[in-house]
Amino acid sequence: MLTADFTLIHARELVCITSTPTDSKPWRGSDLSSLGIISDGALAARGGRIIWVGRTDELTRHVQPTSNPTEIDATGRVVTPGLVDAHTHPVFPAARADEFALRAAGKTYQEIAQAGGGIANSVSRTHSASTPDLERLARQVADRMLAGGTTTAEAKSGYGLNRDDELRMLRVIRSINEHHAIEWVPTAMPAHEVPAEFRSNPDLYVTLVMEEILPAIAAAGLAEFNDVFCEAGVFNRSQSQQIQTRARELGFGLKFHADELSDQGGAELAAAMGAISADHLVYISESGIAAMAKSETIAVMLPGTAYYLDLPRRPPVRRMIESGLAVALATDCNPGSNMTESMPLAMNQACVLYKMSPAEALVAATWNAACAIGRADRIGALAPGRQCDLVVWAVGDHRELAYHYGVNLAVAVIKKGRVVRS
Amino acid sequence: MLTADFTLIHARELVCITSTPTDSKPWRGSDLSSLGIISDGALAARGGRIIWVGRTDELTRHVQPTSNPTEIDATGRVVTPGLVDAHTHPVFPAARADEFALRAAGKTYQEIAQAGGGIANSVSRTHSASTPDLERLARQVADRMLAGGTTTAEAKSGYGLNRDDELRMLRVIRSINEHHAIEWVPTAMPAHEVPAEFRSNPDLYVTLVMEEILPAIAAAGLAEFNDVFCEAGVFNRSQSQQIQTRARELGFGLKFHADELSDQGGAELAAAMGAISADHLVYISESGIAAMAKSETIAVMLPGTAYYLDLPRRPPVRRMIESGLAVALATDCNPGSNMTESMPLAMNQACVLYKMSPAEALVAATWNAACAIGRADRIGALAPGRQCDLVVWAVGDHRELAYHYGVNLAVAVIKKGRVVRS
Repeated sequence: MLTADFTLIHARELVCITSTPTDSKPWRGSDLSSLGIISDGALAARGGRIIWVGRTDELTRHVQPTSNPTEIDATGRVVTPGLVDAHTHPVFPAARADEFALRAAGKTYQEIAQAGGGIANSVSRTHSASTPDLERLARQVADRMLAGGTTTAEAKSGYGLNRDDELRMLRVIRSINEHHAIEWVPTAMPAHEVPAEFRSNPDLYVTLVMEEILPAIAAAGLAEFNDVFCEAGVFNRSQSQQIQTRARELGFGLKFHADELSDQGGAELAAAMGAISADHLVYISESGIAAMAKSETIAVMLPGTAYYLDLPRRPPVRRMIESGLAVALATDCNPGSNMTESMPLAMNQACVLYKMSPAEALVAATWNAACAIGRADRIGALAPGRQCDLVVWAVGDHRELAYHYGVNLAVAVIKKGRVVRS
Repeated sequence: MLTADFTLIHARELVCITSTPTDSKPWRGSDLSSLGIISDGALAARGGRIIWVGRTDELTRHVQPTSNPTEIDATGRVVTPGLVDAHTHPVFPAARADEFALRAAGKTYQEIAQAGGGIANSVSRTHSASTPDLERLARQVADRMLAGGTTTAEAKSGYGLNRDDELRMLRVIRSINEHHAIEWVPTAMPAHEVPAEFRSNPDLYVTLVMEEILPAIAAAGLAEFNDVFCEAGVFNRSQSQQIQTRARELGFGLKFHADELSDQGGAELAAAMGAISADHLVYISESGIAAMAKSETIAVMLPGTAYYLDLPRRPPVRRMIESGLAVALATDCNPGSNMTESMPLAMNQACVLYKMSPAEALVAATWNAACAIGRADRIGALAPGRQCDLVVWAVGDHRELAYHYGVNLAVAVIKKGRVVRS
């Protein structure tokens, strides 16, 4: 008999995603056959870990409660793993609604960046922002993520672009981790943009990143991954490779902003370097698809950004899935190119714009996203041994999570066996 | 000295939209110069009506409180009129997530309709749904509208398609009006689709609508407007004209689903018949634009539906605005072609997809939407004499309402001077 301090019963659909907790491989291919749905499902946890899942009528044969357990009746509801947002920039000093208005007036993202807006806008404001202000705003982002069902998110620096401000951003991320119910997985991104003062000689900044900024971040133990924006006018392929080679030496896992606004061979580079993920991929080429299909690198798709920037091209997501790539989803939450914290919205956008099925979108937003941020051992699925991160939704069919959009359908959000939003 | 039972102070931006309550003309043209924003704004109301607006430091010179007033401190916040959703189908028996999944798999809306899905799907389920179930689901829709800042919405029947079920739907709408804080403006829509049993002879159904259903609705006093789906395979232009001629005789204002999926001359017909609005207009022609520009008919744009159905064409909204058309916004909230209750999302979609400015989107979602549903005398702006419907938003710049999307930024929703959500 197991003893549980958390039980959930009568889920109309308990969407487990996978029932084999030792299997840490992402879903790939177009034969997504099962979400591991248990009808009238129940789940028990203890100390923040799942100890049992099954049918409600079997619960009491296997599980007895502690004296004061948390009990949730999910009658009529869908229950899923907590959503995982595999790519965000959640620490920033201010909104950039002015740039949004300029895009509505017909300016492109690149034109706005060339006029001093874009990432540089957030960078200069980050330099002058106080750390308490950055923390306060980051907490609001974390609150909105959690309210929408996201229990874990990758979180990048990248608006500092110098040693001290990159460290400061990563400390804000650590502070959220320590004082907020959400988990943020830290990624360093000093190579998010070339700072204004290095525009005439970007290689000098590349050297600074390699010799000073990344070593300082590694020494402080503040990030698990390093990400580079490999793009025309930002860091070219050779610079990206240099930076990531150094990052790997320093012990970081590798992520890439790859082929977002043009084909730079970023997908190929990410696959060749054994990156855990290549993200964006709007302009991925056939050779990029082929390279990623043969690799372990996960494609993190950000349909919201392509929507928000109203990009003229759609990435060949069906072709990618059919070619065997593992696809994860993320919001790209950031103040310039996609100001939203909502993973359910990203799922809707993946279905509408990229023709992913609602089931594919759900796996991409949980299990595959967990794989894309190095958490395949712990989250993204509901199975014994895994962390008790889950969401109770005000729907009776998991497809409605992508179908019914723009409103918050989460009625309870549970992190490590504790109700953190209801 | 005025006496107020409701005061709001210190709004960073009090967005009044218009300061002339006697002016009931919609905004038109591309010279939107002012939203009537008052910095550090204050507002006072009594008995659900606004009695004063101005700067906070002037409030006490003009207004004294009653003994137990409602007081809101909106420091740092934007305050706008309650949002007005000018086109919704909020009474339906069930989700249609299965059709959403089929579209993600590549089927078009028309293909799904031809296979027995689409509106016919909701119609057959409406016939078998109990009235309490319809009311319960409609209440959930109304709750989500209100939570997102919509204080008034137009609400159509149209899943009944026979006298009794159309009347039943309109009674559900009346019931929401009587028992819920939101206001729903009722529109009859027996000509939403040709019922399956009339497929071989649609004119028979046209006759039924004109001779039986519309007269019954008029006699019961259950609707202010009548709407017709003028579209290939639904009601052609001649049938639409016959139905609307009869509706006008019966005292209904006229609305049209016009040129949504193909150019049917619907815009021209709506303008010629003096309709209060022509809605959708994705395929509006140059002659349709010219006809509407010379008329009083308001163009209700539904960017969410075009997004959700992933239509290959975008309506020429900038051209429409520059030609002098009055443009309003709506969600089209319905279980088939746009399952969302969120007007802020519609504002975002209008900016991203239709290149409306955030200010244009806000006017289209308040003042022009009020004009499009016959409420220009009462709502859609903040001025003395108008109803005290307003929303306090967790943003400091009105452009952020469209910019920051997919999450609920409404921190307080006030209807007739009463806090109905906070």
